[in-house]
Amino acid sequence: MPLWKIYHPAGSLTAEDKKDLSERITKVYASVPIPKFYVVVIFEEITKDACFVGGELHNKFIRFKVDQIARTLPGAVIREWWMRTLDEVIAPYVRDRGYDWEISIDETPFDLWSLQGEIPPPFESLAEKRWVKENKASPYSLAEKLPINLVLAPGIADR
Amino acid sequence: MPLWKIYHPAGSLTAEDKKDLSERITKVYASVPIPKFYVVVIFEEITKDACFVGGELHNKFIRFKVDQIARTLPGAVIREWWMRTLDEVIAPYVRDRGYDWEISIDETPFDLWSLQGEIPPPFESLAEKRWVKENKASPYSLAEKLPINLVLAPGIADR
Amino acid sequence: MPLWKIYHPAGSLTAEDKKDLSERITKVYASVPIPKFYVVVIFEEITKDACFVGGELHNKFIRFKVDQIARTLPGAVIREWWMRTLDEVIAPYVRDRGYDWEISIDETPFDLWSLQGEIPPPFESLAEKRWVKENKASPYSLAEKLPINLVLAPGIADR
Repeated sequence: MPLWKIYHPAGSLTAEDKKDLSERITKVYASVPIPKFYVVVIFEEITKDACFVGGELHNKFIRFKVDQIARTLPGAVIREWWMRTLDEVIAPYVRDRGYDWEISIDETPFDLWSLQGEIPPPFESLAEKRWVKENKASPYSLAEKLPINLVLAPGIADR
Repeated sequence: MPLWKIYHPAGSLTAEDKKDLSERITKVYASVPIPKFYVVVIFEEITKDACFVGGELHNKFIRFKVDQIARTLPGAVIREWWMRTLDEVIAPYVRDRGYDWEISIDETPFDLWSLQGEIPPPFESLAEKRWVKENKASPYSLAEKLPINLVLAPGIADR
Repeated sequence: MPLWKIYHPAGSLTAEDKKDLSERITKVYASVPIPKFYVVVIFEEITKDACFVGGELHNKFIRFKVDQIARTLPGAVIREWWMRTLDEVIAPYVRDRGYDWEISIDETPFDLWSLQGEIPPPFESLAEKRWVKENKASPYSLAEKLPINLVLAPGIADR
């Protein structure tokens, strides 16, 4: 999570393309920042004659289907910016190569997700920061679920 | 968007079947109306021995998984009518051929979607109507985001 | 619905593994209880060099993507318990075999779903109980849509 499924015509992407594109995608999410290993990209070849757009066979079409965690893109401005950012990320592999393409993102529940048997820690928590650094899932304590910027003292908001 | 993924046993649908079924599906959406090229149908063969229903291997099962835009099916009556309409659309390829089948629709966010690098215009806007006519995505102006039936003048509702 | 898509490296699961894992999954849902035939598991092989985690090729990764009906897992405690239950169900096929893995659940609308051309009856209705017993979809009457424990008489809550 995020999970990217990329449905592409057989033969349209080389092993190198796939590696590069998945790196480009990972980079965007890592800049949020979230742990890099959260980003999973699975390429799936569409067999010939299996993809139809508007009722017409279309063998030059790439469909990006993305699952992201709900509530991570708050507000209309950020959501539009995010779509335009992703369009830039994928452009070299679609627009610049003469393919038609479409991308859509679904938002799935944060709390119905686990990896390596661990339920991921809250955003911007101490544990998440450790996961970013170690780039792998591992057990964490209750204390590590606290936010990195914990402010409980009264009055601080007045300054 | 809509995106139809059709998981079917290898060999259960001919090239002609796929073409015809995708046309039937497209026709329903085009009658909404939305641009025909919004409708993407991807057929995916399930390899032998890879599909289980209720814990039992099932090689005569077709699963339709659909993504539609959230909030496009308002109200219980329209939602039931829509499901029954789609059941009619697919019946010749499942019920009438002795397959078991299931269909479910997910609703994904309208604003996390783009195609050909363009964020689709609002429903029933001038731009959308142009997209319907041209049957392809293209840039549009702010003015074209207005609804085709724009009523700002006061009092018109009284007549 | 639930629909389990299991993306696994080619060759990582035998026919017997698939049968056993789908039975384990079905058992959990049947204990809810819901009809066993609601549980569909589709195994999909990821071709070599098509899966990337954190921008790195990863050929020992299994991704579980689940669709469940919205509102069937009410409350934080049940949702965490459910994830931990599923983690136990899949553990023998991932953790115990040295694979990395991830699981996420999406929640899709109850009312945009049908199987065998029938819109499934309400949870805990008479019809659903019959479907559980018969383990297949069939037409049902309006009366069968009523809950098995129908309490309309006033005052019963006071006793």
